[in-house]
Amino acid sequence: MLIRLAYDIQFDNPAEVAMVALLSVHPSRVDDLLEPDEMQIEPRIPLSSYIDSFGNRCTRFVAPAGPLRLSSTTLIRDTGNPDVVNPSAREAPVGDLPNEVLSYLLNSRYCEVDRFSNIAFEHFGHLNTGCSRVQYICNWVHSHVAFNYQHARPTKTALDVYTERVGVCRDFQHLAITFCRALNIPARYATGYLGDIGVPVVLPMDFSAWFEVWLDGRWWTFDARNNQPRIGRVLMATGRDASDVAMTTSFGRADLRSFFVVSEVEAANSLAASVVLPQTAQI
Amino acid sequence: MLIRLAYDIQFDNPAEVAMVALLSVHPSRVDDLLEPDEMQIEPRIPLSSYIDSFGNRCTRFVAPAGPLRLSSTTLIRDTGNPDVVNPSAREAPVGDLPNEVLSYLLNSRYCEVDRFSNIAFEHFGHLNTGCSRVQYICNWVHSHVAFNYQHARPTKTALDVYTERVGVCRDFQHLAITFCRALNIPARYATGYLGDIGVPVVLPMDFSAWFEVWLDGRWWTFDARNNQPRIGRVLMATGRDASDVAMTTSFGRADLRSFFVVSEVEAANSLAASVVLPQTAQI
Amino acid sequence: MLIRLAYDIQFDNPAEVAMVALLSVHPSRVDDLLEPDEMQIEPRIPLSSYIDSFGNRCTRFVAPAGPLRLSSTTLIRDTGNPDVVNPSAREAPVGDLPNEVLSYLLNSRYCEVDRFSNIAFEHFGHLNTGCSRVQYICNWVHSHVAFNYQHARPTKTALDVYTERVGVCRDFQHLAITFCRALNIPARYATGYLGDIGVPVVLPMDFSAWFEVWLDGRWWTFDARNNQPRIGRVLMATGRDASDVAMTTSFGRADLRSFFVVSEVEAANSLAASVVLPQTAQI
Amino acid sequence: MLIRLAYDIQFDNPAEVAMVALLSVHPSRVDDLLEPDEMQIEPRIPLSSYIDSFGNRCTRFVAPAGPLRLSSTTLIRDTGNPDVVNPSAREAPVGDLPNEVLSYLLNSRYCEVDRFSNIAFEHFGHLNTGCSRVQYICNWVHSHVAFNYQHARPTKTALDVYTERVGVCRDFQHLAITFCRALNIPARYATGYLGDIGVPVVLPMDFSAWFEVWLDGRWWTFDARNNQPRIGRVLMATGRDASDVAMTTSFGRADLRSFFVVSEVEAANSLAASVVLPQTAQI
Repeated sequence: MLIRLAYDIQFDNPAEVAMVALLSVHPSRVDDLLEPDEMQIEPRIPLSSYIDSFGNRCTRFVAPAGPLRLSSTTLIRDTGNPDVVNPSAREAPVGDLPNEVLSYLLNSRYCEVDRFSNIAFEHFGHLNTGCSRVQYICNWVHSHVAFNYQHARPTKTALDVYTERVGVCRDFQHLAITFCRALNIPARYATGYLGDIGVPVVLPMDFSAWFEVWLDGRWWTFDARNNQPRIGRVLMATGRDASDVAMTTSFGRADLRSFFVVSEVEAANSLAASVVLPQTAQI
Repeated sequence: MLIRLAYDIQFDNPAEVAMVALLSVHPSRVDDLLEPDEMQIEPRIPLSSYIDSFGNRCTRFVAPAGPLRLSSTTLIRDTGNPDVVNPSAREAPVGDLPNEVLSYLLNSRYCEVDRFSNIAFEHFGHLNTGCSRVQYICNWVHSHVAFNYQHARPTKTALDVYTERVGVCRDFQHLAITFCRALNIPARYATGYLGDIGVPVVLPMDFSAWFEVWLDGRWWTFDARNNQPRIGRVLMATGRDASDVAMTTSFGRADLRSFFVVSEVEAANSLAASVVLPQTAQI
Repeated sequence: MLIRLAYDIQFDNPAEVAMVALLSVHPSRVDDLLEPDEMQIEPRIPLSSYIDSFGNRCTRFVAPAGPLRLSSTTLIRDTGNPDVVNPSAREAPVGDLPNEVLSYLLNSRYCEVDRFSNIAFEHFGHLNTGCSRVQYICNWVHSHVAFNYQHARPTKTALDVYTERVGVCRDFQHLAITFCRALNIPARYATGYLGDIGVPVVLPMDFSAWFEVWLDGRWWTFDARNNQPRIGRVLMATGRDASDVAMTTSFGRADLRSFFVVSEVEAANSLAASVVLPQTAQI
Repeated sequence: MLIRLAYDIQFDNPAEVAMVALLSVHPSRVDDLLEPDEMQIEPRIPLSSYIDSFGNRCTRFVAPAGPLRLSSTTLIRDTGNPDVVNPSAREAPVGDLPNEVLSYLLNSRYCEVDRFSNIAFEHFGHLNTGCSRVQYICNWVHSHVAFNYQHARPTKTALDVYTERVGVCRDFQHLAITFCRALNIPARYATGYLGDIGVPVVLPMDFSAWFEVWLDGRWWTFDARNNQPRIGRVLMATGRDASDVAMTTSFGRADLRSFFVVSEVEAANSLAASVVLPQTAQI
């Protein structure tokens, strides 16, 4: 399956501001790209790119005052299969985890693991360990938290989600991640493209968040928001939580004006003729 | 100057528990060591060691139920000079910061940078930038927060310190770090040995926390708790905040029983005869 | 001046639910009423009314499942003068405050007075006491907090307002109240009608919140949101904070469907012909 | 049974400070007093007394700079019976509650009822209503929260207790109160004397906190800390939470120096010879 990916993000900045964007397809998917994945920037200012400590490709630049436009379109090959699920995947004892996985058990800005030790054990401590327990956590979050764009806020932590029971995409994942970590299951936050392939269209297209869990020696995709295997996730970045992988981080004021994302199946023979028809999305 | 370093930490654990210890002298100081810096563990169980993503040496093991003792003694060569201060060191625009420094501008578990944007600018936004502004931040924290071991708690964030105005070593640094980051000055948390060389003895010896700030292309030591240049800091670990560099992290219950730290000048000719006289310390 | 007051609030409740409404004109203004101030309820269910410990008239009832409509229209005589300001009104020492005023110095749900002791003194402790200091507090809140209906949430406390710097009407007042109390100035929350008499129309009409401060032996009106003397406030209720005086409190789920408020000058000779033209308001 | 009650509380205040003390036996118990219950104050400064809106006797005064001593001794007649328990006491529908009881369903400083709606229903929503459900709540709090004087702090709310699972007397009651209110069961905070009559002596004597729940048309005593019927409670004050009924509230700095409380059985024939032997207590 071929998936057309595109974004068009516009700002109007009151003053010069340094920015970092995590808008590239993740290095682990670069071999699937059929077109270059290059961020276009207007006005044409110098960009530089680097890989952060989590393995994500970052692009940094200093935007001048005035309008700023970040955009890209690329094409990626995808299996067309839904997320792989292995119901028998096992949790590892902490003592057997690889060194580099241990930090995904710790506290982070939005995931107050320390405040959830008891709550997580009371909810999930009695369950069989492994994939089914993580799935149970997703089921719990999915059925106890309501999705509502009106209740997004940048300071909302897992504990806020647990008490308020309403949130957006990232809030669902933060709560599920925190539950996992409190049970000593490594979990990390993931962002990327997720179109509506194979599902009814519910919302305008947007970047999406999900999370990954370490079982049986590798990372597996889970998604407490959608809570069903989905086709066509294209990973952009992973980190401890949303703090690490914001689409754009501005070190000063940056006023978002519009935001379009595309992620849709492209007929194989229409490669050259593809037309991006962006849809409006709220962040 | 030679400094004798030692610790002796004892637990009594109700069950087997995986642990990670950051008790080694930092790799950047290894060349100064005159004796091996090797953690002794009782009972004798397998240890393994690795460098984490922040560059710290970590030691991991799975402790059995029952008593556990971690100890070490080593000797290190030190300049004997107080912390280097460069009053003219300049802040860099974010756009000029090295890639790997950018993450020290972001939110972390104990440092809610996003909630301090306005507060930090109101307090410190009008000041000349650079070393003197960081020093002013340290002065502010030092004079507005009271030290009190009775008011330590593991969930205390920078915002709690800002409102409660009381805390221990790490709380002072978390607040100062958060102020710096909110002003786009990279800052990271540091832990290590800090004896009472050249100062009146106030407290039983303990590991200590300070912080580092990126100015003029390198990290500089600041200490909002002591707020004076000190002799004999021996760095063990740096990270985004205390979450990243806990002396020991236990993935399950671990009951601390006693805790001794030594960091004192050793006469050069007494090398072989050195006797460690530990002092009790609260954590 | 005659002011026409009206509201029409509709719910659709999934199940029977007990409710309390604070929608009556305050007992202190009853003598100014030219028409009865009686809540109409559909369906016609029994209502009962009482005065709570703060002196507010409350109406309670048990609403059946299904649609519920609360409405009223009345007419009140008003001086037509703006809020009375007395720049020389003095703060009293706590020791001289009347007994019943003391509780307006304490913590309440949305006003964490204890967490603001130092912050308030740092901001306002050096100012001359009295009316001018309270006005300075209003100026500070008014100029440091942005009004935005999108950032309302029922759990937002004064500390949240102080760090996030954005909110709705009630958030402005909670922060100003908390500053006052932290300085030992009694302050209480007030709600009522506030039309746009004498000011440009900015927003759809709604109930409004302001606050009252005890100076020179009486309560004075302040309003950190509008921060200018206004004409035509009609008090409905006062309390420690918004928790005490919610327009409606539902002890179970109640789904608000629509909300209209009217507060406008009525020509004296059009009394009988008055037509209520409600405007939509968000809460 | 006769119970000797006494306290001796000493401060050393850096400056004149207004204070309010709630140290009197509650008006509901005044008929049981066999000796006057009069606060002695040194130095001898004017006191005045009033009943607050919750029905508690308050004593107010303006303490000069320097040492301050508040003390009293009195004797009270008690049934000598343990707390009355009525396992069949029923919850009332909110619609049937007396007007003055409704406010004990709302949010207060330490009881974030709104944040507990879902949590409380998940824990206790499926249980039979009435006394047994309240007892179940007490059992839950008693068995899930650890008592520890080291973890007291004045800003700890019910949500903090729920996540940290450690606290002092008042923290246990705040959590239980909040659970009750979230389930629409009126609950209020109570303070008073509670000696160790009939139980092994565990701690130095102190004032104690418990809570009261409205069932079957009256208030009943519950105590999530001790969680067993006790003999000899002598009520001093009730309120929404600890904010309303602090033993002493100081409107400015007041430094506590020592604190003694006595509450012990007195032989009937030793009335005149009673000797107060105070014990040290931490607060």
